[in-house]
Amino acid sequence: MSQEEMVALAQQLQKGELPLNDFVERIRSMNSVAKLEHASLDLDRQRRCGYPEVVFAEGKSVATLKQIFDRLLKENVSIFATRVSAEKATQLLPNCPGLRYNEQARTLRLGVTQRARTGHVMVVTAGTSDLPVAEEARETLDWMGVSCEVIHDIGVAGPQRLLAHVPRLRKSDAIVVVAGMEGALPSVVGGHVACPVIAVPTSVGYGAAFGGLAALLGMLNSCASNVAVVNIDAGFKAGYVAGMIARGKHQNEEAP
Amino acid sequence: MSQEEMVALAQQLQKGELPLNDFVERIRSMNSVAKLEHASLDLDRQRRCGYPEVVFAEGKSVATLKQIFDRLLKENVSIFATRVSAEKATQLLPNCPGLRYNEQARTLRLGVTQRARTGHVMVVTAGTSDLPVAEEARETLDWMGVSCEVIHDIGVAGPQRLLAHVPRLRKSDAIVVVAGMEGALPSVVGGHVACPVIAVPTSVGYGAAFGGLAALLGMLNSCASNVAVVNIDAGFKAGYVAGMIARGKHQNEEAP
Amino acid sequence: MSQEEMVALAQQLQKGELPLNDFVERIRSMNSVAKLEHASLDLDRQRRCGYPEVVFAEGKSVATLKQIFDRLLKENVSIFATRVSAEKATQLLPNCPGLRYNEQARTLRLGVTQRARTGHVMVVTAGTSDLPVAEEARETLDWMGVSCEVIHDIGVAGPQRLLAHVPRLRKSDAIVVVAGMEGALPSVVGGHVACPVIAVPTSVGYGAAFGGLAALLGMLNSCASNVAVVNIDAGFKAGYVAGMIARGKHQNEEAP
Amino acid sequence: MSQEEMVALAQQLQKGELPLNDFVERIRSMNSVAKLEHASLDLDRQRRCGYPEVVFAEGKSVATLKQIFDRLLKENVSIFATRVSAEKATQLLPNCPGLRYNEQARTLRLGVTQRARTGHVMVVTAGTSDLPVAEEARETLDWMGVSCEVIHDIGVAGPQRLLAHVPRLRKSDAIVVVAGMEGALPSVVGGHVACPVIAVPTSVGYGAAFGGLAALLGMLNSCASNVAVVNIDAGFKAGYVAGMIARGKHQNEEAP
Amino acid sequence: MSQEEMVALAQQLQKGELPLNDFVERIRSMNSVAKLEHASLDLDRQRRCGYPEVVFAEGKSVATLKQIFDRLLKENVSIFATRVSAEKATQLLPNCPGLRYNEQARTLRLGVTQRARTGHVMVVTAGTSDLPVAEEARETLDWMGVSCEVIHDIGVAGPQRLLAHVPRLRKSDAIVVVAGMEGALPSVVGGHVACPVIAVPTSVGYGAAFGGLAALLGMLNSCASNVAVVNIDAGFKAGYVAGMIARGKHQNEEAP
Amino acid sequence: MSQEEMVALAQQLQKGELPLNDFVERIRSMNSVAKLEHASLDLDRQRRCGYPEVVFAEGKSVATLKQIFDRLLKENVSIFATRVSAEKATQLLPNCPGLRYNEQARTLRLGVTQRARTGHVMVVTAGTSDLPVAEEARETLDWMGVSCEVIHDIGVAGPQRLLAHVPRLRKSDAIVVVAGMEGALPSVVGGHVACPVIAVPTSVGYGAAFGGLAALLGMLNSCASNVAVVNIDAGFKAGYVAGMIARGKHQNEEAP
Amino acid sequence: MSQEEMVALAQQLQKGELPLNDFVERIRSMNSVAKLEHASLDLDRQRRCGYPEVVFAEGKSVATLKQIFDRLLKENVSIFATRVSAEKATQLLPNCPGLRYNEQARTLRLGVTQRARTGHVMVVTAGTSDLPVAEEARETLDWMGVSCEVIHDIGVAGPQRLLAHVPRLRKSDAIVVVAGMEGALPSVVGGHVACPVIAVPTSVGYGAAFGGLAALLGMLNSCASNVAVVNIDAGFKAGYVAGMIARGKHQNEEAP
Amino acid sequence: MSQEEMVALAQQLQKGELPLNDFVERIRSMNSVAKLEHASLDLDRQRRCGYPEVVFAEGKSVATLKQIFDRLLKENVSIFATRVSAEKATQLLPNCPGLRYNEQARTLRLGVTQRARTGHVMVVTAGTSDLPVAEEARETLDWMGVSCEVIHDIGVAGPQRLLAHVPRLRKSDAIVVVAGMEGALPSVVGGHVACPVIAVPTSVGYGAAFGGLAALLGMLNSCASNVAVVNIDAGFKAGYVAGMIARGKHQNEEAP
Repeated sequence: MSQEEMVALAQQLQKGELPLNDFVERIRSMNSVAKLEHASLDLDRQRRCGYPEVVFAEGKSVATLKQIFDRLLKENVSIFATRVSAEKATQLLPNCPGLRYNEQARTLRLGVTQRARTGHVMVVTAGTSDLPVAEEARETLDWMGVSCEVIHDIGVAGPQRLLAHVPRLRKSDAIVVVAGMEGALPSVVGGHVACPVIAVPTSVGYGAAFGGLAALLGMLNSCASNVAVVNIDAGFKAGYVAGMIARGKHQNEEAP
Repeated sequence: MSQEEMVALAQQLQKGELPLNDFVERIRSMNSVAKLEHASLDLDRQRRCGYPEVVFAEGKSVATLKQIFDRLLKENVSIFATRVSAEKATQLLPNCPGLRYNEQARTLRLGVTQRARTGHVMVVTAGTSDLPVAEEARETLDWMGVSCEVIHDIGVAGPQRLLAHVPRLRKSDAIVVVAGMEGALPSVVGGHVACPVIAVPTSVGYGAAFGGLAALLGMLNSCASNVAVVNIDAGFKAGYVAGMIARGKHQNEEAP
Repeated sequence: MSQEEMVALAQQLQKGELPLNDFVERIRSMNSVAKLEHASLDLDRQRRCGYPEVVFAEGKSVATLKQIFDRLLKENVSIFATRVSAEKATQLLPNCPGLRYNEQARTLRLGVTQRARTGHVMVVTAGTSDLPVAEEARETLDWMGVSCEVIHDIGVAGPQRLLAHVPRLRKSDAIVVVAGMEGALPSVVGGHVACPVIAVPTSVGYGAAFGGLAALLGMLNSCASNVAVVNIDAGFKAGYVAGMIARGKHQNEEAP
Repeated sequence: MSQEEMVALAQQLQKGELPLNDFVERIRSMNSVAKLEHASLDLDRQRRCGYPEVVFAEGKSVATLKQIFDRLLKENVSIFATRVSAEKATQLLPNCPGLRYNEQARTLRLGVTQRARTGHVMVVTAGTSDLPVAEEARETLDWMGVSCEVIHDIGVAGPQRLLAHVPRLRKSDAIVVVAGMEGALPSVVGGHVACPVIAVPTSVGYGAAFGGLAALLGMLNSCASNVAVVNIDAGFKAGYVAGMIARGKHQNEEAP
Repeated sequence: MSQEEMVALAQQLQKGELPLNDFVERIRSMNSVAKLEHASLDLDRQRRCGYPEVVFAEGKSVATLKQIFDRLLKENVSIFATRVSAEKATQLLPNCPGLRYNEQARTLRLGVTQRARTGHVMVVTAGTSDLPVAEEARETLDWMGVSCEVIHDIGVAGPQRLLAHVPRLRKSDAIVVVAGMEGALPSVVGGHVACPVIAVPTSVGYGAAFGGLAALLGMLNSCASNVAVVNIDAGFKAGYVAGMIARGKHQNEEAP
Repeated sequence: MSQEEMVALAQQLQKGELPLNDFVERIRSMNSVAKLEHASLDLDRQRRCGYPEVVFAEGKSVATLKQIFDRLLKENVSIFATRVSAEKATQLLPNCPGLRYNEQARTLRLGVTQRARTGHVMVVTAGTSDLPVAEEARETLDWMGVSCEVIHDIGVAGPQRLLAHVPRLRKSDAIVVVAGMEGALPSVVGGHVACPVIAVPTSVGYGAAFGGLAALLGMLNSCASNVAVVNIDAGFKAGYVAGMIARGKHQNEEAP
Repeated sequence: MSQEEMVALAQQLQKGELPLNDFVERIRSMNSVAKLEHASLDLDRQRRCGYPEVVFAEGKSVATLKQIFDRLLKENVSIFATRVSAEKATQLLPNCPGLRYNEQARTLRLGVTQRARTGHVMVVTAGTSDLPVAEEARETLDWMGVSCEVIHDIGVAGPQRLLAHVPRLRKSDAIVVVAGMEGALPSVVGGHVACPVIAVPTSVGYGAAFGGLAALLGMLNSCASNVAVVNIDAGFKAGYVAGMIARGKHQNEEAP
Repeated sequence: MSQEEMVALAQQLQKGELPLNDFVERIRSMNSVAKLEHASLDLDRQRRCGYPEVVFAEGKSVATLKQIFDRLLKENVSIFATRVSAEKATQLLPNCPGLRYNEQARTLRLGVTQRARTGHVMVVTAGTSDLPVAEEARETLDWMGVSCEVIHDIGVAGPQRLLAHVPRLRKSDAIVVVAGMEGALPSVVGGHVACPVIAVPTSVGYGAAFGGLAALLGMLNSCASNVAVVNIDAGFKAGYVAGMIARGKHQNEEAP
């Protein structure tokens, strides 16, 4: 919060234009926002939502990303950025010791969210080409402190590949299912388990896959009752929601 | 072919405007078309395609349908009409003894295509609500003289329902899979069998099912290699293609 | 399982066409499926998924629904059917004592799933017109044995309406947010809480709402990380996923 | 107007083919159009619409743009071109002293529209990635002579970021809200203020953002009554409409 | 605010769970919300946005609408409801003396917003079939206290119809243009005037009009810089935004 | 033109606000517009475009249609209205002697456009269900004074049906091809003739026909070079364009 | 026709499998097709359709194009190829003396269609960025032997630009209107003239222009009756249809 | 199957958590899956489906493809990979002697499926630009051991090109029809033959071809009853389904 803004608010208070309550609330909330040149970091996110703000790197310049990372480090907040191109990563890594780039997931990370590893999430893919999205989910869960295991390439055209894994799937707190093309895997997985399935359509496929639309619509219309869906290729969000469910289940265990 | 048209053609021949070959071909082809007031029946269809023309009743008036049926009877061609509303059927049945209406399939039929029953096709549905489309396929296969068996409601959310039927499915010459919502069943069936799967998306579902679009896209993107697709709710066409495959396989057996 | 099918299987066993293992598995799995005329009930669903099969009534005839309900009663499974029109309900209620129809939710129910009430889910709507979908979610949660509270009409154009409820929302195990038009509410709710938000787009709106498509796309692109989405108007599925999350959190408490 | 055209018109007048009125009107209107090789500049635009024609540079060759700029300079009209690639700008800048390129906004400008700075418009973005579009709006407002302030990155997932700015927003004559992804920010801003909100969807996002379609539909369906929408990424048009509203409010003040 | 809620809050305050500031803010904000059975009326809307909340009647039951109207009357807020079917209006009118139904606009109203008539907005339609949407805009402007004039049927295929009205259009503070089919009229009007044009696409047309989509896309892509767009058939919103612009221009005049 | 408007214009002239030319032009153009309560009839259309204005009846009330017809009669302009429902026709016919309703085409007509019958257009349909659209085209051509012949049901699945008509098609000045479903007929017809083909997609079909979208896209992508397309079900427009081409070809013949 | 094919046909004739007529027809039709490695040139096109086959170069290799051009030269048919990239042109030009590349239109040509220049078509563009498509139309008309004039950049936002050209437009046999963005120009032009307007939507624009979809839909829904539409960016087809109309009008004049 | 997994299963068996049957089935099914780092090869595919798994190379890294090929070679399974870019092929070929790359089809192959050549399929294209997709189908049929012949460029605008080939088409067991743009060819071919037609829409075309959507919709709506459809550009799948039909017809002949 700038000196200037502070004075302006105080003057409003003196003139009676701003009630005392509002003045106090304004101060607090503005202090929870770190204002950079082109960004407003939400430093209050961890308190409200359980995890700090994650940086969406697409469309942000290297300069802006550097400013954001520097500030997060200063505020002692762990860095997690998604959809970072290899080019941007190459420019950012030298400036920020400890930062680690996952080329497949296209994520940048520094630190975890500090808590003990709790809960367990399976991430399964329908095909090998879904790997980058699964990897983004895995990286997210790791950052959240949730234990995670990935099973690749168990799409529905080879049904015995899935059946072999059912017992392990049934022990998961939540399951992330990553699939492109017709996106049928979440329905099939959903019919075998008693936990929520977070389905991620991917842009894998061609022609009438329409960049993931076919898989997205398939998943939204899943006949399995326990399937919720996130955006196309949104490995991060699927991992995040699944991680939140997994941690929720084990909150009480954590305390002691 | 009207007297008038015949004379006109003959005059063109005399004047040298029409080569003899063209004259002869024109006569033959026009005789294979039965011209009604608002319709041109293709009487040559059975010779070319193996089965007579099927009547698409939607958008045709009762009067026109009656004219068509009368002419087909006169030409000794078996009648098969699809997408016939109950209202139209009620008006047509009294006029045409022997005509039979299938209320679920919304088809009208008189006679079969006369050949012995050959080949075998399974029709399976993902859910009970897909029944009318499956029934249209079944009626089509019956009219074609192909043996047919229907299994209802074996969608992917209850996987053991499908597994119980795999041995029977593996004995089929072709399989028609009828499914709405996410349309995942053809992929799963396709992974268990070594015959072509003809997938029919249905308009069963709501919201992002978009009238069958989700199922259609899912089926087109099936990861199973043996799946071809027909139009949404096109039970007739699926039955027809499957029946053609089944008869093809047993053609040699028929001869003796 | 019919006598006929049993004999057929046994004969296959005798002829060595079916290994013993397969024979046994086939018997068990077929016994977990109740075969009706046009439906195959999955009686194993509760064991696998935690809750019995829910009946999707759209596109099913009254006769078929009656057969299904009778069989579920005989199997001692609680009945829960969604998307039941008032007309069908009127015909079904007299035949099935104890069945209860919720006109707004368009659900039919008989019994709960028998377990103690555990977990807590808030259901919030953006506008009063979203009521039927919210009611379907509420009814689902009630059937699952999950405690549920509904807050109506706190859309984003009147922001103080939401703020007043934030403390209560923060105590929920999961939140179902029901919104049509631009579907912005889940993002705003998501930014205030540390639990998963299950967003349901509704077909409320007109013009470029395109039957809920605008809300659906908005929710899928939510900038809040904790938002997963279900189908348009899918109050049942949202309630189901949220209920599953809520019960999961309290599983350990239930035991003693 | 060419000599040739003038003569042709005059001859029509003499032959009585063209009424005197039409002749006069034709002369005047043709003189208000500057005809270049592949362009027809509307020199009457400022009189009719308050501001001169703005050049849409996409799809125009450097040679054509140069011709247009030269003519505008000759006519003493300020130059403002949008959607100018860096490549084109590099080629054009040396030829036209005083021309200024804004790399983020992708605009070229020479001069303002000459009037005193009047009115005030806030431009707010939901995220840092929306910056280029906001910058195009800001540049437009500056060219129009309207005072403008930009607030970055106050999207709905961090609600306190917006609240801190509400008092300033309430003092704006109109507000431009720039947002991608779900496009929820205009609804939330709209609920806090009593001036028109011009919403600009951006192509920021991925997957089901469909190049800005999700944000566009969201904004069109905004539940806030004071929100109007412009094309995806159309920072120029949003700035223009907002600027026109702002100047309109202060027209009377300008006079004295 | 219920007694119960008040006590609960006070207890939180006593236990130190709720800071004093939050307690005070919570009381104030809850008092600005009128909680009905299925609705939360935003009584603070007029203070924040200049006009009270408008009721969207689609999807609301007659009982709920009655509750809302009763409460608004009690709070002394003028009633304005849009998208009210004739059936609902017939049931509501007897219960609420003074309520007036506009059958074409499908609006219900009681009272105006009390201020003097200020500002001027033209509403023009491309064709006679656009009448209901124009009427909704006109009714909205009347309720807002803005003077309004409607010109019907001046679509672009008869260009002289528009030209005759240009001088009057140029005197408007803002113009609402209502058009279906190709939606070209706003561009043409926009090229003649120096005020904002609020374009409303309508669902008038057939085939590739796709329920107003063609007009919507056309308007969003208008080559006229002063055109902003609202939802398909959204006469209310167009009237509202135009009215807000018109009043803004004349605010200073109102004071004395 | 009202007395009031005339005086206003004259006063502007006197004050020097309106140049004499503009004054005169305004008078003339306003006199070519017949202003009704909710419509502005373009009486100058025949002079500019060769045919008088055609009334689009959809969305217009019976009262408005009656006003329009009365005025056209008074102006001695032939009446032609399209997309008139049977209900409206029943109400309008008694009031307007000589008016004739074509139930299939859904058109109302009184008189022709008076000129001698000139030119020849073939209208062909792919299927009997395309009849109403073809009939609208035929009625339009008849009204325009163009000779017209209709051939029904010569879709591409029975290729000899088309071949029989090729010589007649080759003698047409332009051909209107009406087809739903896949809309393939215009391409096939186009490959046989040396005149323009005006293709009309129809909403005949179901499922992925998407209300005529499939046929529309097919026709737009026709590999035949001589195919232009009009809106889905737009029999009127296809007839109009074809009629205009046919008359154009014979203009010189008409004179003597 | 290969020796082999000829023998095979003759043998069928001898065995009585092929009627004499069919044999003769087969010979003739196969001789009218030039079979290359990957292409089948239709040498009969000019006889049937009035103009020889035009080559669509997109997706064809340079080698294939070379083969096609060589054969056309040998058959003494004029070459006209559309959608030729600059890269392909550069490789083809040295091999084929006399071939001319139009870089803007992306066409390759050798010779005209030999007939005298007849008929007149105006090509108008809404904006300068529509130039390449207009140029393709112009090149096509030139190849067809139709006189052509282009007017650039007379879009609807500067209405006087169009009015100045109305007299010339009214003298055209047909008009090609090329427009992107909202595609409103054909409607406005159509309202001023008595000849067919062939509208070409272009992919000029961004955001909700959706690659020309907005313009396409606008043109299909044109309220002007004389507007027919071709594919997005299809300058060739628009030119072709317009040219065919223009030549048709002057056919009789040509004879003497 | 890893040692670890085996032990875990055995322990479950000992503890009575896993029935003996399940234990045995699990062992067998896991042994039919070859687990690589990021892929699970389905080694049981040939037994179930008649042909081994085909590798979809898009989105897979060269390293992963190499692992897969090595394993397939070790398992003595023939290699067939589709959608392999030239870059990947160049890297893979040196490592795998005997591997052959088809640049047009973009396939990699090693070996056939070993069976004798049986059955016959015609592959026809509408235009030369459809070549790569046809080539993928041809390569697939060759790999399956099905005889195949390709006819190029017989699209519907030159109808005699198709007629010349009808006798050969009528002798095919199944026909693959490859077409872009309006996709009309399958309907026309379908009307001439008595075998199934597998239609492949291609992305050939521009503008409203929308990447093959127009052709896809056209084919799905084909009025010919014997047409089934596969994904856009899916030459592989069309070849596969057609090959399966062709082999099915000749199964009995193979035996002796």
